[in-house]
Amino acid sequence: MSTGSGSSARSRGRRPAGSGTREAIEKVARRQFAELGYPGTTMRGIAQEAGVDPRLVGHFFGSKQQLFVAVVELPFDPETVFDQLLAPDAPDLGRRLAGFVLGLLEDPRARNIVTGVIRAAASEKPAAEMVREMITTRLLLPLARRVGGTDPELRAALLGSQIVGLTFVRHVVGVHPLAEADRDRLVAAIAPVLDHYLTGPLGEAP
Amino acid sequence: MSTGSGSSARSRGRRPAGSGTREAIEKVARRQFAELGYPGTTMRGIAQEAGVDPRLVGHFFGSKQQLFVAVVELPFDPETVFDQLLAPDAPDLGRRLAGFVLGLLEDPRARNIVTGVIRAAASEKPAAEMVREMITTRLLLPLARRVGGTDPELRAALLGSQIVGLTFVRHVVGVHPLAEADRDRLVAAIAPVLDHYLTGPLGEAP
Repeated sequence: MSTGSGSSARSRGRRPAGSGTREAIEKVARRQFAELGYPGTTMRGIAQEAGVDPRLVGHFFGSKQQLFVAVVELPFDPETVFDQLLAPDAPDLGRRLAGFVLGLLEDPRARNIVTGVIRAAASEKPAAEMVREMITTRLLLPLARRVGGTDPELRAALLGSQIVGLTFVRHVVGVHPLAEADRDRLVAAIAPVLDHYLTGPLGEAP
Repeated sequence: MSTGSGSSARSRGRRPAGSGTREAIEKVARRQFAELGYPGTTMRGIAQEAGVDPRLVGHFFGSKQQLFVAVVELPFDPETVFDQLLAPDAPDLGRRLAGFVLGLLEDPRARNIVTGVIRAAASEKPAAEMVREMITTRLLLPLARRVGGTDPELRAALLGSQIVGLTFVRHVVGVHPLAEADRDRLVAAIAPVLDHYLTGPLGEAP
């Protein structure tokens, strides 16, 4: 990507398109996506807070979805979470995993990031690639491998299908009563499913 | 919605914006969404095949997503499917339901409709309302009620979370190996989950 001349930005007293500008836009975008959510964040609002011409944001990053994919960061450290989920004195892995996912999604900033990725993945290839990576490389496949069941790739994808679907129905679309249901209630309902996908007999008749 | 004057359409020898035009656009749109899929269908392509000015399509229906919601139809009759799933000589409800859903999604036209609804629901309120209706009114709640377990609303929403998530991960985003997995393999893997949500103990520890 070109950095552009920045002349139009300078002409209105804004931050020039030089060094540090891209980073400043990224920082503002990251905060706005987390605080305002994906639908509530605009290229114009980011440009305004970063003190640059709105066209410069498009020039650096392309579309809003491309900008989102460029700046989004996982709201937790995977290895730390795996260590907690898989601690030797921690049975009930499905229950712990369900509790972690549902708890994460109750934090507004984390929820905005996760729902933003899923919303964007529904229509944009870079965000869809991010969802694939989360499931196959960064989060669920490493977890399934550490648990040690057969066929970890399929287990990770099945876990992903339930976690993505839960997020979609509870937080993106908002289906009653899943949208309002108590977290502990849902942990109990979903834990056996996550346990089944992590360690159950996948290929046999039920 | 207004029907418009149609003068711009007439001036280029196209179909006028009079009676039957809206229906003609709907018919073309329904077919193109089913055959080309949601991403492959354009307002311009629909207008071209319907023989109307592209602006008239927007005038009647608004955005592509609004047009999609206006014309989309379920690719099956729910009551007939429920009767088959719940026939007295048909045990293994989870397995039958998983087979029905996965089989439906292997039909390209049905898959285009279902993935189109889910894609659109990720960003547009009318499509999100359609997903809520499918789960709470038209499909999964009536099914859960006929099965007769406790708390059918929550069971329907949980079923919806798994079915939407499976569609999203297998057909919208395409996560390996779920995207390519054999149908019978997935039926076996998912059937216990659907059984759990339909009839299992939701509120207890696993």
